[in-house]
Amino acid sequence: MREERLALAGLPVLARIPDRPKALLLALHGLQGAKEHILTLLPGYAEAGFFLLAFDAPRHGERGGPPPSSKSPRYVEEVYQVALRFAQEAQAVAQEARARLGLPLFLAGGSLGAFAVHLLLSRGFRPQAALAYIGSGFPMKLPQGQRVEDPEVQALYREPPALRGEAYGGVPLLHLHGTGDLIVPLARMERTVAALRPHYPEGRLARFVEEGAGHAITPLMARMGRAFLEAWL
Amino acid sequence: MREERLALAGLPVLARIPDRPKALLLALHGLQGAKEHILTLLPGYAEAGFFLLAFDAPRHGERGGPPPSSKSPRYVEEVYQVALRFAQEAQAVAQEARARLGLPLFLAGGSLGAFAVHLLLSRGFRPQAALAYIGSGFPMKLPQGQRVEDPEVQALYREPPALRGEAYGGVPLLHLHGTGDLIVPLARMERTVAALRPHYPEGRLARFVEEGAGHAITPLMARMGRAFLEAWL
Repeated sequence: MREERLALAGLPVLARIPDRPKALLLALHGLQGAKEHILTLLPGYAEAGFFLLAFDAPRHGERGGPPPSSKSPRYVEEVYQVALRFAQEAQAVAQEARARLGLPLFLAGGSLGAFAVHLLLSRGFRPQAALAYIGSGFPMKLPQGQRVEDPEVQALYREPPALRGEAYGGVPLLHLHGTGDLIVPLARMERTVAALRPHYPEGRLARFVEEGAGHAITPLMARMGRAFLEAWL
Repeated sequence: MREERLALAGLPVLARIPDRPKALLLALHGLQGAKEHILTLLPGYAEAGFFLLAFDAPRHGERGGPPPSSKSPRYVEEVYQVALRFAQEAQAVAQEARARLGLPLFLAGGSLGAFAVHLLLSRGFRPQAALAYIGSGFPMKLPQGQRVEDPEVQALYREPPALRGEAYGGVPLLHLHGTGDLIVPLARMERTVAALRPHYPEGRLARFVEEGAGHAITPLMARMGRAFLEAWL
């Protein structure tokens, strides 16, 4: 197992590389996260054969910030502008990784990264399977006083990814969530699964709910997520 | 890996034995099941180091039946008489196995076996962690016309295991369930978790819900259950 810095689709990418990789796993971090951080939250994945890839979202990590501030009247708009670009970049990074490394690709995201996973699936991106940690396929409730003028962000509110289940192609998807999540309430994840349900064949859509966990990817969630991916390896 | 027949607590027990066992896993089958069957539903467990043990419930398998018939006006009473004896025997088998083999013990049960798991936990039995497949900690809804006269069974209805959460000692417990389960409805499992919630510390009680799965332990559930147990190894 070794760590390397790669350049993929013109972006700096951190890779954790197993001795005998079986598959790629592109991991998308959340708001105020970074590529280094999301990889520390996925222990045992490289040991299990996942060639881990992570890159910083726009306005995060080494790409220069600051991330959107909740004090801005355009906070929500800025957050989803980041998510939209992040998802686009993820697709480019994934495609180049797949082409260069010749391995099947899996996808994981935490919080805003999970929303980016939904964006990708709803736009026809086809990983072998995907994990959505502590996130949902709906944009956050619009707090009072927030302005959204960007038509692309407005479109996310008009037609959230979770309501485009027919476009997911039944890609195996596991949501992982804590009951004590105050940032993305459990009900929002459950609503996401309910919206996708009619479009999914049996046994490819599932949720893992950990009692008492807050807005954090716990070691138990990470372990369960890994087991789910391994089912589709 | 090899299979062996043992005698534990006076009962014939089927064992699936890994080359280097790390822990015991006693697996309790459901109504009309058998020790051989429940072991086939747990693929990969022995390979992962679990020394699997299973025995037939009263009125099942080689112990001579028939299992309770749903045509009997005492069907429900007979079912829970089986569960009560099964749980008692499980405790004796587990204790002897632990003493003889000197390994930590885990517990799993499917359907009526999951109810037996709840019975055991609510009576102070302390495995390292437990899995409850496609079951609940409440007895089934009493169908019209059913008579329950056995005071032990009546007591299960008066005070179901799930309502004795303070007695579970926070033993890590994962419920695994399908949304299409027509025998034990998902809501009954969710009610079980809700009842236990106040008595559990963070991160030790969880549920895995598979969309579309019926009343069956699916390969995906088995895989997720194994990952949960491994977190407490």
